[in-house]
Amino acid sequence: MERDFLRRLLPRLPSHPRLLLGPGDDAALLALAKDNAWVVTTDMLMDGVDFELHRHDARRIGRKSLAVNLSDLAAMAARPVGAVISLALPRSCGEALALELYEGLIPLAEEFETAIAGGDTNSWNGPLVTSITAIGEVVPGKEWRRSGAKPGDEILVTGSFGGSILGKHLDFTPRVREAMVLAEKYEIHAAMDVSDGLSLDLSRMCEASGCGAVLDLSLVPIAAAAHELAAQEQGGPSALDHALSDGEDFELILAVSPAVAEQLLASQPLGVPLTRIGRFVKQPGLWQQVSGGPLLPLSPRGYEHQL
Amino acid sequence: MERDFLRRLLPRLPSHPRLLLGPGDDAALLALAKDNAWVVTTDMLMDGVDFELHRHDARRIGRKSLAVNLSDLAAMAARPVGAVISLALPRSCGEALALELYEGLIPLAEEFETAIAGGDTNSWNGPLVTSITAIGEVVPGKEWRRSGAKPGDEILVTGSFGGSILGKHLDFTPRVREAMVLAEKYEIHAAMDVSDGLSLDLSRMCEASGCGAVLDLSLVPIAAAAHELAAQEQGGPSALDHALSDGEDFELILAVSPAVAEQLLASQPLGVPLTRIGRFVKQPGLWQQVSGGPLLPLSPRGYEHQL
Repeated sequence: MERDFLRRLLPRLPSHPRLLLGPGDDAALLALAKDNAWVVTTDMLMDGVDFELHRHDARRIGRKSLAVNLSDLAAMAARPVGAVISLALPRSCGEALALELYEGLIPLAEEFETAIAGGDTNSWNGPLVTSITAIGEVVPGKEWRRSGAKPGDEILVTGSFGGSILGKHLDFTPRVREAMVLAEKYEIHAAMDVSDGLSLDLSRMCEASGCGAVLDLSLVPIAAAAHELAAQEQGGPSALDHALSDGEDFELILAVSPAVAEQLLASQPLGVPLTRIGRFVKQPGLWQQVSGGPLLPLSPRGYEHQL
Repeated sequence: MERDFLRRLLPRLPSHPRLLLGPGDDAALLALAKDNAWVVTTDMLMDGVDFELHRHDARRIGRKSLAVNLSDLAAMAARPVGAVISLALPRSCGEALALELYEGLIPLAEEFETAIAGGDTNSWNGPLVTSITAIGEVVPGKEWRRSGAKPGDEILVTGSFGGSILGKHLDFTPRVREAMVLAEKYEIHAAMDVSDGLSLDLSRMCEASGCGAVLDLSLVPIAAAAHELAAQEQGGPSALDHALSDGEDFELILAVSPAVAEQLLASQPLGVPLTRIGRFVKQPGLWQQVSGGPLLPLSPRGYEHQL
């Protein structure tokens, strides 16, 4: 990191029991917890793609840059340990922007006990890019893979879906706490976080698991923002369409046995609602069913990354 | 990562005994080695700052993006374990560019037994950005910090300095093997890698260690490229000036006791030359001395990152 910047930043960074050596040397040192594996995830966000610097507060952008990574850790049932923060700053904004980004992400790091272990802070003539790598830990074998869903499993989701563009895509809470509660007490067969759209990400989970899924569309929890978007666009997509295809909900999709589903739905052990939206089936592909009617194919829709 | 791209890339990625779960899920899983701490470092490279996409081969850019991180691990005496690769690709280049970048970094990852654990591949309307986080391991307490140099220690360096802009800044070999040999057999008090210029980085090592350094300028190993640059620019900086102030040599500076220095200089246990260029002293600051003459102040020069 740049020296003067580091001198200003360091007093702002919280200490962390696992951080043996923090920013300022060639690399950071993190202490191990015995018998765990390390879970590593990385996300790069770009101005004009994942946020708009001229419209969005830099603190919200900084917070989102870390939150998307914590969401990935949650989707693996991994407890966050640390993160490294790389920034490409437009030359005109420089250090002031960097500090704002950090002011946004530090409270989230504290909330989820994530050490800010280091980073690389640069300026250039291009737009803002943030790139964060988060490291967590899990007991090997206890991680939630996408590939573990079995025909007969129920599909549960946290929270509600659609319309995140109205604000949630910046201000969502990664489901780390929820994942820790679930991982400790319940057998979860598979999980992933919804970043590209509920139906698209569910279809990916099916593909990874070698099975299919039937959604009961009347059960999909639709966010208020999805209704709001639908009301704004007369003749456009419905609120349900938004819930099925909008990206960046950052909720969890879970595959659990019917018995565990019943237990979870009855006890609702999380701060956010858990809802059953369908079941995994042998037949590959995505299917829809309304209130016990016939099975119809459902096209997975969402944000497809194009290279 | 983008799906189609991943489908093409995955068969190219070497397997790795420590990679329990590789690219394709929400995060990667790396196995622990008992009793080690984790060493984490990250570097972001930008078109027009760290490379020029219109001039430099994409494979060399990909290779450099990983090599700068491995150099940081070497400077901590950490053995590489894995890396995650984030890319922001100009929309006009897309997947073809991404594959070329990977073709450049995969052989380096294989050479240094580094698992490619995951990544995030994006395209946008901006210039190419690469951001790699590398993870290594070290027995806690055995890491080389910048802060461990003591007055009386000798200053040793690997290789030679200056003129890296002529090619070495892209094609250097990170001193991982050398660091592993040294860490196993010798007591090294402090180390860092030279990324911003020999005199500037040495002055930072002095500052971190709370001491000063006297350089014998007649001993500084000058790279052939530094002589070449000096010859190109009549009346410009001398070859020695280049050696003292050019960035991106990616050689190691080491602080060792006189006894260890003598042993290392006599046995030359590395594939690259080890050279003594001066000693650490109590008096803070950087000093120069030519062949036993008086001490004169030496201004640290190099690449100062501006935000």
